[in-house]
Amino acid sequence: MDSQLPAIYRLGIVGAGQIARMTQQAALQLGITPRLLAESIDDSAALAAPDARFTHPDAIASFAEVCEVITFDHERIDIGLLQALENDGMQIRPGTKTLRAAFDKLHQRRILSMKGFQVPAFAEAKGPDDVIDFAKQYSYPVVIKGTKAGTQSKSQVWVVSSQEEALKVLSEQSQQELMVEQHMDILTELTVILARRPGGNSRTYPIAEVTNKDGVCQQINVPADIGPHIAAEARGLAKELADYLGCVGVLSVELFLTADGLVVNELAARPSNAGHFTIEACATSQFENHVRAILDYPLGPTELNFAAATTLNVLGTADCDPAMHLSDALAIEGAHVHLYGKMPKPGRKLGHVTAVGNSVDHTSELACQAEAALLGRRYQKGSSS
Amino acid sequence: MDSQLPAIYRLGIVGAGQIARMTQQAALQLGITPRLLAESIDDSAALAAPDARFTHPDAIASFAEVCEVITFDHERIDIGLLQALENDGMQIRPGTKTLRAAFDKLHQRRILSMKGFQVPAFAEAKGPDDVIDFAKQYSYPVVIKGTKAGTQSKSQVWVVSSQEEALKVLSEQSQQELMVEQHMDILTELTVILARRPGGNSRTYPIAEVTNKDGVCQQINVPADIGPHIAAEARGLAKELADYLGCVGVLSVELFLTADGLVVNELAARPSNAGHFTIEACATSQFENHVRAILDYPLGPTELNFAAATTLNVLGTADCDPAMHLSDALAIEGAHVHLYGKMPKPGRKLGHVTAVGNSVDHTSELACQAEAALLGRRYQKGSSS
Repeated sequence: MDSQLPAIYRLGIVGAGQIARMTQQAALQLGITPRLLAESIDDSAALAAPDARFTHPDAIASFAEVCEVITFDHERIDIGLLQALENDGMQIRPGTKTLRAAFDKLHQRRILSMKGFQVPAFAEAKGPDDVIDFAKQYSYPVVIKGTKAGTQSKSQVWVVSSQEEALKVLSEQSQQELMVEQHMDILTELTVILARRPGGNSRTYPIAEVTNKDGVCQQINVPADIGPHIAAEARGLAKELADYLGCVGVLSVELFLTADGLVVNELAARPSNAGHFTIEACATSQFENHVRAILDYPLGPTELNFAAATTLNVLGTADCDPAMHLSDALAIEGAHVHLYGKMPKPGRKLGHVTAVGNSVDHTSELACQAEAALLGRRYQKGSSS
Repeated sequence: MDSQLPAIYRLGIVGAGQIARMTQQAALQLGITPRLLAESIDDSAALAAPDARFTHPDAIASFAEVCEVITFDHERIDIGLLQALENDGMQIRPGTKTLRAAFDKLHQRRILSMKGFQVPAFAEAKGPDDVIDFAKQYSYPVVIKGTKAGTQSKSQVWVVSSQEEALKVLSEQSQQELMVEQHMDILTELTVILARRPGGNSRTYPIAEVTNKDGVCQQINVPADIGPHIAAEARGLAKELADYLGCVGVLSVELFLTADGLVVNELAARPSNAGHFTIEACATSQFENHVRAILDYPLGPTELNFAAATTLNVLGTADCDPAMHLSDALAIEGAHVHLYGKMPKPGRKLGHVTAVGNSVDHTSELACQAEAALLGRRYQKGSSS
């Protein structure tokens, strides 16, 4: 049975994780039904989708034929293929220049440093000599990284304190392309979420302060505990970056605040984990503004509706399915629970909670309570969650 | 390809209009994928659904077999069949006692007046004599109504000013069961949205003031322009009603405020049009609290996050598809646009807009601007929309 409705907006989303799931919900509110290119029927967004195709991710070309605009849930993509589609006039959003910068971290460092953006000192690490030479100049600890984003769910970042440790990582990770970077003394990790339309009009969200654990983003507090000058500089920097990359859609810019100022750490060329707070805390969510931006609609206001917000990721543990503890989590007043419908696995992002309120102290407390409840733990104030 | 995920929550929604669409979205946020019993692939919720079955609405019995809890998008239901399912132990929510009261307006008036709730004077109207006798007692104008809710999209209410008009309605509407009611002098129409759990725990939302046009709910302003005593009385009355009916889920209680106090007008035993403001304006939407209530989870807070909110329905016109004007509507800062994906038809509810802000004057203005934009009209301040 085919729908009699005209397919006015043929929006395709490549990938079907939780980012696609939440983007899809934002599109549906506006009356737009996106198509999904999923890999499995158990993908988070496919579980919530009216129109999912289950094919190999390389099938983007045939998927693009039934779409007018395509956007992305992740970075596991063949940029060469997308470039060819873009050359044929397909609307690839955020655009291949942005996608390439987000996907290839070495390329990203090169073009950004060439353009004068502050990035950590870096070098390609084809073999031990590259790392040894780099460490001579910058001294240990140094950071070894996989150059390709989003190929694994685990973090591909190793901080090594000695040549011995470095060589161990190099030998264990010989199957992937690596780079080596200066280890920065970081005061705070910040993320600027920005949405940008094709013509260049953009809006930034209030700056988020991000706490990582084992290289995975875990707690996001908004507003970040920084002064107005740093905040303005961070927003300006994100805008400049988005303009330089010609990004269309949401760009997530991760920054290190160091004693010497702001340094660009990573980019995500899509709504990101650090922007989930915008669903409840802001006038327009990052997902709705991503949809607006890629379809070239006016962007919605991005200001906070509350004094503070905290988002905590809910990561799978060995023995617990958060869905079984939903009732306990919903009992925490002021916390908003999101579960992605995924099969529980240790370390997997199964959902998130966002609390909104009058102070970061308070919202952090509520979010920790709700996260603990979902994981079947008793939360004790002051304990690490 | 069957999902490998366990079907933990087998929630079924009978009907697939916009109420089901928004309920589904609320369930998905909590990681719950509802099943839908739709009538057509073009139904609003079916367009957004991962799991819709397309069968005749009478197929509830076989649908119920694959669900643990079922709830409803509309009132076009066979209560006898539901009663049998309920007797077999099926979780029918809100429950057949509530559904019967919402579906059969004559039955509703009878049980409520017997229980001491204030309702307009009423009588069954089997033929002309019933109306003539009633009008002798209460004098014209009187109100003639179809007794069954939700069987037509058009209003089934006629205010008649003379015996001649009354007889005309009776002869034109001879195919349906009718009742006759006292015409009330109404100061304000109010709606109380309430969510109630199986054990009786309930929460009411801030009271909405509703403006109808041609019997269709069109503008909702919150908070209603009434004093705190009337507000408390209205909330108390809604709670008493829900307790009496043993309602589980959201109950929408429409009240007339008259010079003699509050009078019960209608009930909707589900999230209703008058509660759409809760999506953006309240800590927990009516749709999320409906899902929480029917699955017996703790209810979320219901207070307003803003001083004021206005919702306006977007009704189809002869010559306009609101989806084509989405860009203009999204340019109105502070208005939230919802389109239901429906085929445009004159008078059909195609979407709604909600504005939140500091005063009803301001939110009303923004909502009118966004509604006018969706209908391809230029809004002029002070003009009727």
